[in-house]
Amino acid sequence: MNKNKKALAILMRARMRPNFNDPAKLSLFPLSSNPKDNQFAGNAMQPASDRGNRMANDLGNTESAFEVVRESMHAAMSMNKTEVLDDVLNNFSEGYFSLSHENRRKLLLVLAREYDLNRAQVRELIKQYLGLELPSVSGEKAKVSGYEEEGLFSSFYRIERNLRHALQPVYEVLFERLNTHPGGLRFLSILRADILSILAEENFVSLRALDSYLKGKLSTWLSPAALELHQITWDDPASLLEKIVAYEAVHPISNLLDLKRRLGVGRRCFGYLHPAIPGEPLIFIEVALLKNVAQTIQEVLWDSPPITENEATCALFYSISSTQPGLSGINLGKFLIKRVITLVKREMPHISTFATLSPIPGFMQWILSKLASQTKFSEADMSQKPAEGCSSTFWENLLRPEEEKTLLSLPKDVATGKDGMEVMFNLLTSTDYKWTKSPELLSVLKPPLMRLCARYLLQEKKRGKALDSVANFHLQNGAMIERLNWMADRSEKGLSQSAGIMVNYVYRLEHIEEYAHSYFSTGDIHASCDLRHSVEP
Amino acid sequence: MNKNKKALAILMRARMRPNFNDPAKLSLFPLSSNPKDNQFAGNAMQPASDRGNRMANDLGNTESAFEVVRESMHAAMSMNKTEVLDDVLNNFSEGYFSLSHENRRKLLLVLAREYDLNRAQVRELIKQYLGLELPSVSGEKAKVSGYEEEGLFSSFYRIERNLRHALQPVYEVLFERLNTHPGGLRFLSILRADILSILAEENFVSLRALDSYLKGKLSTWLSPAALELHQITWDDPASLLEKIVAYEAVHPISNLLDLKRRLGVGRRCFGYLHPAIPGEPLIFIEVALLKNVAQTIQEVLWDSPPITENEATCALFYSISSTQPGLSGINLGKFLIKRVITLVKREMPHISTFATLSPIPGFMQWILSKLASQTKFSEADMSQKPAEGCSSTFWENLLRPEEEKTLLSLPKDVATGKDGMEVMFNLLTSTDYKWTKSPELLSVLKPPLMRLCARYLLQEKKRGKALDSVANFHLQNGAMIERLNWMADRSEKGLSQSAGIMVNYVYRLEHIEEYAHSYFSTGDIHASCDLRHSVEP
Repeated sequence: MNKNKKALAILMRARMRPNFNDPAKLSLFPLSSNPKDNQFAGNAMQPASDRGNRMANDLGNTESAFEVVRESMHAAMSMNKTEVLDDVLNNFSEGYFSLSHENRRKLLLVLAREYDLNRAQVRELIKQYLGLELPSVSGEKAKVSGYEEEGLFSSFYRIERNLRHALQPVYEVLFERLNTHPGGLRFLSILRADILSILAEENFVSLRALDSYLKGKLSTWLSPAALELHQITWDDPASLLEKIVAYEAVHPISNLLDLKRRLGVGRRCFGYLHPAIPGEPLIFIEVALLKNVAQTIQEVLWDSPPITENEATCALFYSISSTQPGLSGINLGKFLIKRVITLVKREMPHISTFATLSPIPGFMQWILSKLASQTKFSEADMSQKPAEGCSSTFWENLLRPEEEKTLLSLPKDVATGKDGMEVMFNLLTSTDYKWTKSPELLSVLKPPLMRLCARYLLQEKKRGKALDSVANFHLQNGAMIERLNWMADRSEKGLSQSAGIMVNYVYRLEHIEEYAHSYFSTGDIHASCDLRHSVEP
Repeated sequence: MNKNKKALAILMRARMRPNFNDPAKLSLFPLSSNPKDNQFAGNAMQPASDRGNRMANDLGNTESAFEVVRESMHAAMSMNKTEVLDDVLNNFSEGYFSLSHENRRKLLLVLAREYDLNRAQVRELIKQYLGLELPSVSGEKAKVSGYEEEGLFSSFYRIERNLRHALQPVYEVLFERLNTHPGGLRFLSILRADILSILAEENFVSLRALDSYLKGKLSTWLSPAALELHQITWDDPASLLEKIVAYEAVHPISNLLDLKRRLGVGRRCFGYLHPAIPGEPLIFIEVALLKNVAQTIQEVLWDSPPITENEATCALFYSISSTQPGLSGINLGKFLIKRVITLVKREMPHISTFATLSPIPGFMQWILSKLASQTKFSEADMSQKPAEGCSSTFWENLLRPEEEKTLLSLPKDVATGKDGMEVMFNLLTSTDYKWTKSPELLSVLKPPLMRLCARYLLQEKKRGKALDSVANFHLQNGAMIERLNWMADRSEKGLSQSAGIMVNYVYRLEHIEEYAHSYFSTGDIHASCDLRHSVEP
């Protein structure tokens, strides 16, 4: 214990973001980070520090550096002897980390294109397969249906097996070998983070195929069966606790006392650990035990517990952070939440409500771009047809008449604009969130902000899923949207992301699977009556 | 500690083979067990107890019981809602355990045949694929080689992905779902044990395809990256220690004191644990710290350590036991031995030799069948051509002239036979291993037995691999055959398996990978000079 405390104290004094034990290894971070669909828990990932990047660039941006790593990559796939292989894999991963951004990109494209599958072999097998005559068996399904037919199908089984094998790209070997190599799984996760950041800039079909293949492999290796649910406590090693400090994405941990509180009475913290990435949870969730579902983050970030654990009836998930940007799109959280609920329920049967108090990371961006574009449409319309309102099919007044009226009746020294939307835009973008300091402005802005936030969460979609990444995360896990909370997070981050609004998602044990399924298949979003009413026209 | 001791004491008093906590669940054992290629460590698996089988048969041999389980199996693959799915998977696995041998067999054949892949879909995709024109790109390899070609290949990538998917049999879904279901991985391992025992009786092409597919999945899920190396000590829970008692295959653990000694000073025990099969090592290895490579098992099974750990220069692997017959063919031991060597070397740098003292489970069976068949050939030959010795091409005198002579010169009341081989056969098969009690017989039999045992290990093969399963295990892990030890295991089991002979395999750190590779690729067996000389003609 004392050892842990001391280590932590040193860590905290030094900096909040640890160097992962060795400052020279800063380049172990992925190139860039925070791929968009990993944002459900806020900004979990920080980019590699400038210093780390500069180091990498100095050493790794030459053509010869690239060729060395390219050769070790080739060796890693083509060599046979396992002992040497360990060295080769180490060379390759160390070499990779030393490469500049540009050289990493080049290397990954080489991997995607030149270590693809053998199409000639696939064609050959395919022709053999088509040459097989389907035995005219009982069913029309071309399946074995009795002992006497077993023999007829042996060629099918053989070629199907070979075809499965031939359809594996050559880079499959590299992935498999890295997976069984110490540190390899973590390396693969960093490799994928880099791939995602390249694909975010430019769409390479070959690299996208590689990414989808690698994602499939990672999903298998990180299957819930291989993950261990671990309750993180103050008794855990400092080396693990520093990861919590570093990766806590939703409500940053400010000091040693704060971290200890997050693990103390009235709270729980659970993480998923994978044996191959020891001492570093892939994802972790923080829980507060409460009497009621909290409406503001202040109710959760207490200094001393407001109630005893026995009085709690609600387990509130107030923070979920993933630590690996390279695992983006692999939903580790789903099983985590489900398992944590089961665990808490078993330990504390008196807890009947499982809810979150969640950020709405995309709301302000959405509403500001909506307001800005409507204002533009409105201007365009005005110049053409000054009379009879706005008739463009794209134009939509986001505000209700009474909201428009109140906004336009504000004194001119407080807010200006030719219509309610422009006034609102100007208020929301004023420096230092001035609007949040005036009771009058708060009361004017609350109705349209709350209503539009509900609309954003319940109705705005992208490819059939909720536009907001955190909403999408909880909805696909089977939650429903319960309640919006006004001025629930007055921090700089809370105001800039969602005008201070936070949302409670609720997991109803008896509906989790039904809701997850309907959201998955039809995009249906379940919400409380109040919220549904608030967005009705 | 006290709790552990008490639990163990109770366990030991009750029976050496625990019921896995619940006597009603005896049928959780696989149908039959000990598939042949799992024998490297001796008889690790016992068949389900008679009582368990009888229980299962009483309840599970009706047509209606079969139909119920068949339906839950179908539901497990076709249902979408995960919550219900958990129940369905539980129903299926419980139902499966309740089925009789015959009904399990029927069910597995239904799974293999009716939940196979969709061949019509595969054909459709294959035709689409053949319809694609290979872009005439720079290389002849049909690979993307530059940005401008990326687009040309997108249809290839798409159909290849779809084809990969279509080539997955329907039962893939069942396996994947069970893998993420609590207890599912263990269930799959039992399922596979049953499949192997069915295939050992009768070859069903469809079931063999299913087995090969399932084996592939299990290999991935149980990749070394997902396995945790755990040093098993007396501080471990009794529930884990009882597994060691139950599964120790090579040198059965006789009582509580014995188990404690196996985990005490001068010894180590390591196991591989998988998070999804908690508290039950999949494979474990016992190590003794010695001054020299032990020649007899008595040197290893000491009561109090003969030397202090500091004096040790040799780590002797004296027992490796696997606990899951359903993981047969998945070489968990390879990585285990490599990791254990690294670990021991780090903890105790003064240890320079890593060796085994291993049984030779197949020797007696091989030599007796050789002697018997040669005797038969010899009789056949004699009846045709009484003169001029034995000319059949199949006939071979296993004995050297001087061995033959000594054997035939034994008094008639001790041994009879028309030639040396028949005398030898009769001596070896005499009741109560009478030959081992006579110094004279021991000295007569030692030369031919040791020589033929070396030949058995170094030269007798099956499909290019060592015929002896334990030899094959260590050779594929990169060991060499160092030395044979006469009268090294005088136990009933040692005498019946290998006439009391044991063998030392040695792992030379600098050669492990080279030897493993050459054994794997060409079947080359590395052995010490002495051994190689002893088998020269």
